[in-house]
Amino acid sequence: MRLVVAGTMALDTIETPFGRAEAIVGGAATYIALAALHYVKPVGIVSIVGTDFPSEMLQHLAERGADLQGVVRHLSRPSFFWAGRYHADMQTRDTLETRLNVLEEFPETIPPAYQQADFLLLGNLDPRLQRRIYAQIQPRPRVVLMDTMNFWIERRRPELEAMISQVDILSINDEEARQLAGDYSLRRCARSILARGPKYLLIKKGENGALLFSREGETYFFPAYPLEEVFDPTGAGDTFAGALMGYLAAQDTLNLEVLKEAVVQGIVLASFCVERFGVEALLTVSPEEIAERRRALIQMSHFIQVPALP
Amino acid sequence: MRLVVAGTMALDTIETPFGRAEAIVGGAATYIALAALHYVKPVGIVSIVGTDFPSEMLQHLAERGADLQGVVRHLSRPSFFWAGRYHADMQTRDTLETRLNVLEEFPETIPPAYQQADFLLLGNLDPRLQRRIYAQIQPRPRVVLMDTMNFWIERRRPELEAMISQVDILSINDEEARQLAGDYSLRRCARSILARGPKYLLIKKGENGALLFSREGETYFFPAYPLEEVFDPTGAGDTFAGALMGYLAAQDTLNLEVLKEAVVQGIVLASFCVERFGVEALLTVSPEEIAERRRALIQMSHFIQVPALP
Repeated sequence: MRLVVAGTMALDTIETPFGRAEAIVGGAATYIALAALHYVKPVGIVSIVGTDFPSEMLQHLAERGADLQGVVRHLSRPSFFWAGRYHADMQTRDTLETRLNVLEEFPETIPPAYQQADFLLLGNLDPRLQRRIYAQIQPRPRVVLMDTMNFWIERRRPELEAMISQVDILSINDEEARQLAGDYSLRRCARSILARGPKYLLIKKGENGALLFSREGETYFFPAYPLEEVFDPTGAGDTFAGALMGYLAAQDTLNLEVLKEAVVQGIVLASFCVERFGVEALLTVSPEEIAERRRALIQMSHFIQVPALP
Repeated sequence: MRLVVAGTMALDTIETPFGRAEAIVGGAATYIALAALHYVKPVGIVSIVGTDFPSEMLQHLAERGADLQGVVRHLSRPSFFWAGRYHADMQTRDTLETRLNVLEEFPETIPPAYQQADFLLLGNLDPRLQRRIYAQIQPRPRVVLMDTMNFWIERRRPELEAMISQVDILSINDEEARQLAGDYSLRRCARSILARGPKYLLIKKGENGALLFSREGETYFFPAYPLEEVFDPTGAGDTFAGALMGYLAAQDTLNLEVLKEAVVQGIVLASFCVERFGVEALLTVSPEEIAERRRALIQMSHFIQVPALP
């Protein structure tokens, strides 16, 4: 298996100043896989869905190249459910409701076909679960990327730190970086976090772009693509990570130059994601649209001596 | 006169999580002039100081190439005074006290030597005052840049809009842009504001960098230089504008390429400014330090095919 991704598959009810969508397909693994499948296949998914998860979305995933051997369908309980309301700034949100439902029975073993994965993306999950999935892939994947959230930083600090020490790339947002490092300066946070093991740290800043730090002390700054309209920010971080790892998995190598291009792909795909409710944009955006927006993003950020674009 | 700048010269008491500085020299015109003088001289200043403004700072300014004919010293009242406290994020702040003092008698006429200025920077002041200063320069300066703040957007909207319609470059922060345009999307805000007259709009976003929009629809994104420590953000926006206009005034032309480089200079000088209390860094930073940080900033933001640096 080229790339294995682990994370939730969920139903979300989302309220924004522009509208409301009820029980639409969401979850980290859904966004991650749909994003990664723009670049590479097959993508093996480790997740669990409930009785109410639409079969047609599983079919969409399979048609695009997802391997669903690692997706368990629970026979009697509903899917993980999240409801949230975005504020007018479209960056901050309140969680209105979380129902774990099937999440407590998230699979702890992965299919044999996944056990030699080259690339592993551990979406936001209990770090104990991330660890168990990670440990089942032998030999160790060439590249492991993980995400996490404030909840695990607060409740599972030792297990989380142990997992972070094992990965190549940690992808978190600015608040999480500050919480994890206990500092305000993102530059100092980066140094502290990279000292714990990862080769690279990606700090996501929503509409303010992303920072890439390497353990060797390099720093790169990536703007977000400035949109006329942000319609639904849900899944932007997962789409970013999924596109990034999908791109990496298609390149067969990890170095700084390849990673920088992967970050650009992640930013571009995330910018499409937030222009529609849920995963809709990930199902419809074309390679040409992605290439065109990538060109525009590079053009607007390479402000001195704009180089010829490849 | 090559460049004329108008704005307050003040005493500030600043509290940050790192310390407190009492009644130190501040004010928009002070930061603007000290920044611009790194690039061009003479810089004519239009401002007013009170009995308590340190003569040695005026002497510093004069030695660096400031023309002080337009600076009035009031014989009996103290200088404009501002006291503020920064929060732990070093981006948001509370104003603890504002004493206008001499500000009510800000000079309404400019010295004859300033009346043929090529470049005019209107710092944050009552737009009626900005307008009177602007009107005294004949023929119209080649480039006019203005700043403003939420207070004037709320209280002097018609006069402010009239002034905005006359300038070449408007330099404001993201909140001010949103307030001025009555919209959230910065891209839509930019279109709306540029339709009112300016050729270029600069939107400052603090530690998240700056966006440059042109009336022709171009967008450029500039990161802030990521600092280990922000010590005192006061004057960062004024330093940005001052360095930018100082650089432009030294180039003798305004086009998009020159302006992009000017923005980089503004970002770099502002990054030094916030590493020290008040104007201290502007008095001590060297051309070599500025050039080195400029190189680093370009390196970290030109993430694809890094071009040879000039």
